[in-house]
Amino acid sequence: MSDRSLLVVVLAAGEGTRMASRLPKVLHKVAGRTMLHHVLAATRAAGATRTAVVVGPGREDVAAEVRRIVPDAEVFEQTERLGTAHAVLAARAALEKGADDVLVLYADTPLVRPETLGLLRAPLAAGAAVAALGFEPADPTGYGRLVTAGDDLVAIREEKDASAAEKAIGFCNAGLMALAGTHALGILERIGNANAKGEYYLTDAVEIARADGLPAVAARADADEVAGVNSRVQLAEAEAILQRRLRLAAMAGGATLVAPETVFLCADTVLGRDVIVEPHVVFGPGVSVGDDVVIHAFCHLEGARLESGVSIGPYARLRPGTQLDSGVRIGNFVETKAAHIESGAKVNHLSYVGDAHVGADANLGAGTITCNYDGFGKYRTEIGAGAFIGVNSALVAPVTVGKGAFVGTGAVITSDVPDDALAIARSRQVVKEGWAREFRAARAKPKG
Amino acid sequence: MSDRSLLVVVLAAGEGTRMASRLPKVLHKVAGRTMLHHVLAATRAAGATRTAVVVGPGREDVAAEVRRIVPDAEVFEQTERLGTAHAVLAARAALEKGADDVLVLYADTPLVRPETLGLLRAPLAAGAAVAALGFEPADPTGYGRLVTAGDDLVAIREEKDASAAEKAIGFCNAGLMALAGTHALGILERIGNANAKGEYYLTDAVEIARADGLPAVAARADADEVAGVNSRVQLAEAEAILQRRLRLAAMAGGATLVAPETVFLCADTVLGRDVIVEPHVVFGPGVSVGDDVVIHAFCHLEGARLESGVSIGPYARLRPGTQLDSGVRIGNFVETKAAHIESGAKVNHLSYVGDAHVGADANLGAGTITCNYDGFGKYRTEIGAGAFIGVNSALVAPVTVGKGAFVGTGAVITSDVPDDALAIARSRQVVKEGWAREFRAARAKPKG
Amino acid sequence: MSDRSLLVVVLAAGEGTRMASRLPKVLHKVAGRTMLHHVLAATRAAGATRTAVVVGPGREDVAAEVRRIVPDAEVFEQTERLGTAHAVLAARAALEKGADDVLVLYADTPLVRPETLGLLRAPLAAGAAVAALGFEPADPTGYGRLVTAGDDLVAIREEKDASAAEKAIGFCNAGLMALAGTHALGILERIGNANAKGEYYLTDAVEIARADGLPAVAARADADEVAGVNSRVQLAEAEAILQRRLRLAAMAGGATLVAPETVFLCADTVLGRDVIVEPHVVFGPGVSVGDDVVIHAFCHLEGARLESGVSIGPYARLRPGTQLDSGVRIGNFVETKAAHIESGAKVNHLSYVGDAHVGADANLGAGTITCNYDGFGKYRTEIGAGAFIGVNSALVAPVTVGKGAFVGTGAVITSDVPDDALAIARSRQVVKEGWAREFRAARAKPKG
Repeated sequence: MSDRSLLVVVLAAGEGTRMASRLPKVLHKVAGRTMLHHVLAATRAAGATRTAVVVGPGREDVAAEVRRIVPDAEVFEQTERLGTAHAVLAARAALEKGADDVLVLYADTPLVRPETLGLLRAPLAAGAAVAALGFEPADPTGYGRLVTAGDDLVAIREEKDASAAEKAIGFCNAGLMALAGTHALGILERIGNANAKGEYYLTDAVEIARADGLPAVAARADADEVAGVNSRVQLAEAEAILQRRLRLAAMAGGATLVAPETVFLCADTVLGRDVIVEPHVVFGPGVSVGDDVVIHAFCHLEGARLESGVSIGPYARLRPGTQLDSGVRIGNFVETKAAHIESGAKVNHLSYVGDAHVGADANLGAGTITCNYDGFGKYRTEIGAGAFIGVNSALVAPVTVGKGAFVGTGAVITSDVPDDALAIARSRQVVKEGWAREFRAARAKPKG
Repeated sequence: MSDRSLLVVVLAAGEGTRMASRLPKVLHKVAGRTMLHHVLAATRAAGATRTAVVVGPGREDVAAEVRRIVPDAEVFEQTERLGTAHAVLAARAALEKGADDVLVLYADTPLVRPETLGLLRAPLAAGAAVAALGFEPADPTGYGRLVTAGDDLVAIREEKDASAAEKAIGFCNAGLMALAGTHALGILERIGNANAKGEYYLTDAVEIARADGLPAVAARADADEVAGVNSRVQLAEAEAILQRRLRLAAMAGGATLVAPETVFLCADTVLGRDVIVEPHVVFGPGVSVGDDVVIHAFCHLEGARLESGVSIGPYARLRPGTQLDSGVRIGNFVETKAAHIESGAKVNHLSYVGDAHVGADANLGAGTITCNYDGFGKYRTEIGAGAFIGVNSALVAPVTVGKGAFVGTGAVITSDVPDDALAIARSRQVVKEGWAREFRAARAKPKG
Repeated sequence: MSDRSLLVVVLAAGEGTRMASRLPKVLHKVAGRTMLHHVLAATRAAGATRTAVVVGPGREDVAAEVRRIVPDAEVFEQTERLGTAHAVLAARAALEKGADDVLVLYADTPLVRPETLGLLRAPLAAGAAVAALGFEPADPTGYGRLVTAGDDLVAIREEKDASAAEKAIGFCNAGLMALAGTHALGILERIGNANAKGEYYLTDAVEIARADGLPAVAARADADEVAGVNSRVQLAEAEAILQRRLRLAAMAGGATLVAPETVFLCADTVLGRDVIVEPHVVFGPGVSVGDDVVIHAFCHLEGARLESGVSIGPYARLRPGTQLDSGVRIGNFVETKAAHIESGAKVNHLSYVGDAHVGADANLGAGTITCNYDGFGKYRTEIGAGAFIGVNSALVAPVTVGKGAFVGTGAVITSDVPDDALAIARSRQVVKEGWAREFRAARAKPKG
């Protein structure tokens, strides 16, 4: 990575009217992260030394997300909407502190990759004052065109100002720009608003630099990568592109996705080697899966760590704080939360294991439920290694079931069970002969 | 909408042999509705004043579906299969009553939109006697071609009768036709069967009208919209097209569909603004979702109303008669049916709430089950506001748990519980020290 | 089918480095079967009389899978990797026994159909010595080209040796080859390794045959069918192709797949007429479904037989050994395993029925669980016809509930229940007035 200092300026003030949402556009999520988070993660991976984010007036929610991702980021408000160059200058205080390189990005292009930011920035080290990012959309109509001469970028021409020859250019402006730190502020301050809309356009930086005799160049990105998100349909398209990227990476790493198009990953999902993921599985944030794990169909995982040889599902729902040690088996219609389940333990059916620790090789029968909540507080359940919990048992936390202990079917366990003991809590079975026959006869009568 | 009267004649007598089904073709469903229902809904939205449907001999099931959707529709039987014009004339009694406009549709083209019916009908008000609907399929082979001259429709030429020049025409006959009410019967009665198959073809109406000096014109539809369904594969294709339409409309209205291709909507699904639908969700008929609702993955909803701020799933199954007031939370592996759950109440895990009313802010623990059925009748459960139902409780209806009451873990509640009371019903826990150790030793022996 | 004897030689020694897997490539699965199984099934369907499989050194796992599918197959080890002809000659002992026809296949092309093998083999009966299988890939770059003259196959030319004219040929070598049994060994033994890599190429068989004046011809396959699987991405592509094939066949047979792209079938799945499969359903191996069955969304089936009129799901999980007689209804969050459920019985919610027999018209309430496991052995539960099992009941196997018997809500049944009897096992409900009010007050205090 370059040893040049890098200031990134992320423009996140767009209103996103077409989203038809109360939530600011850049806080909408793709692959489990806000679009803003994706862009900030890409800039961090690309070596950002300082981060400035320009947000709309009063957008504390956006500012909070910035600080959550990059705690030392500077946040600036753009009080008026007077164009992209004006937006960048809202971060003037950050620009004045200086940096070797300045990168300007948009928080609504969540798919941009760090490698591409590196390509965009590289010409600055070689002496360029401005570098713009271009791409070739299927249909260039409506985009600004990158007018080049050899390696030089001559101008970014808005479509309405373009000649017929320029309109034939397929290489279009993605919006992202790199500026040499020594020239950035000087160029930005000279951008004027003598145009139809009276706005300050960042694209004018190219011609200003060239007028100063400074080199301007263009870098190239895939069309998929620089797509801006302005509507829910485009949000879904960005999700689809990112999911394809994540699935291909998972498969290249040695995971089998039986039906990749039905598996939804998060940007931070980690899948080991020889993991098998059946169709229809959803990964939320914070999931790490070791080698040789089988994830059956219809599983839903968030904030969970699965060690090697674990098998879950179908219909397993792992919530945050779940840790499954090697060889653990979680079966169908089972929910875990804040639960550490040790090696070889089994929870095979219709159970809820929350705020709990389950020892190695314990077996929790169908219908086992940890009662972790009494309407006020949450309490923990401790189940010892090798314990056997009978079907339909309720473990009322705080409670401990000892190692090797048995809990009888249908018990409500409110006191600790010693190691190797049996705890039962149920009524004796009583049989009333012939009762059902009489009941049916009585019930059938009114209809007779 | 036009103030001209409109008679629609829907041809629903097709046998659908290629469906390989005992069910008549037009009763197969797309997006949760029969194909016949879709067509009738489109004609109603297009302003039909009277509806006539032609069904196959003895098809009481089709007639019943017609009357369910359009109670005052007239149903006619086509006793012999002698061509499309013959089928329309099965509705002669309806035609004789007169109407300004007559529209002929097919019950196996469920994707036709009211707007398109409006376009087809519009020329009648301007004096046309016949209007045919055309489209441009990817491959016109096999279709009748619409031979036009300027705005005039000259003829509908069957492929086998077409000249080489006519075969080059890409504009094909969709089958739907509009006829001026004053001419309709006269034209239909003059259609002959002097052709290879000895059938009466509705398409002949064009040339008969023109021979009378009456104008005939063509309207245009998308190819997707007029696709006829003749096989299960085409049924699936129609479903896919309609789902795309419904998903786009939901997203345009301000709902996020994280993975639209995995979400299945019904024709009548209503989604509010800032609704988030995770992947893998199925909506059956009759679902209405308010603003700011989150529907997690793997949910299944039918006949349910969700007010603002509700969160359900993953794996929530809402059955008909479910009403969730604002802020209700339904968690995983939970089924509701004929249940009104008031604001802020929670049913988080592994529960069945049927034939029930749950007051505001009540909390139903994991494994709560309303026992609404005794093998004969169904009974209701009433849970008061702020009540707390312990884990693994069975509420044997008819029964009332009062406001603010507590039900202890593992209880079977058969009598009403007063407000603010505690009801418990469980056996004391008994511990047998060392029992498990002995049990294991005894069980291990036979293998020893 | 031909009465000529057929020896198939399946090459299964590929290492599959690009799979990034500890599992040998040919044991990876597509549509629920190993790739090797698919190829062996195709050869069996194509009339193989003898089977020889060449595996990598020490690959006992591959050999075991061969014998599981084709018990009398001969397995040979290829100890060195010296090319495809060398691999075939590892099966020299099988070739020496003689056969009318010899077919050489690859275990990593799981999509090849028996019909295509028939086409490839047919020319042998007409006197050809060698037949190669060709296909037309979207991009022929990298493939060997089939050089033909009329019906004759002149040569298989590797791309690096091809002239410009030959490179323009789109008809490429799929790798599969048929050899006349009388010539096979003679031809194979004359294949040399005088080439850049020093390997023995099976493709040289064509020119050797022709040099002997023996006819060589080419057969044609779809590109989809002969795709080799070398990576997890290609594995997923093969899965997708096969799933499309299976879905189309199911629909042609009279099943409705509402959203075929979300339904995953196994190679051996049998669906009856007028079966409806909602979106998001996964079929594992060994499932047979009768007519008029409805499979709701989110079901998962393996090793299950469903008779006519059954309805399951949503969220039903049928495990191996499940037999559902006509009209059975399995509802949501229900798991069955090794369970025979007779006509008209219902298990509607949140239940586990394992190692059990349920009589006709029995009704199992929500939360019914068969306790089939005590930590050591598995035991059976017998439920009689017309029995009614109350909510949240645990049936501790081995146990029998008689015909027409009732089990009260919340019972733990440990002893047999006679026919028509009622069995209850629960504690009396006790109410403590005002307790909840006091509890809340006490709990609220610390925060006060």
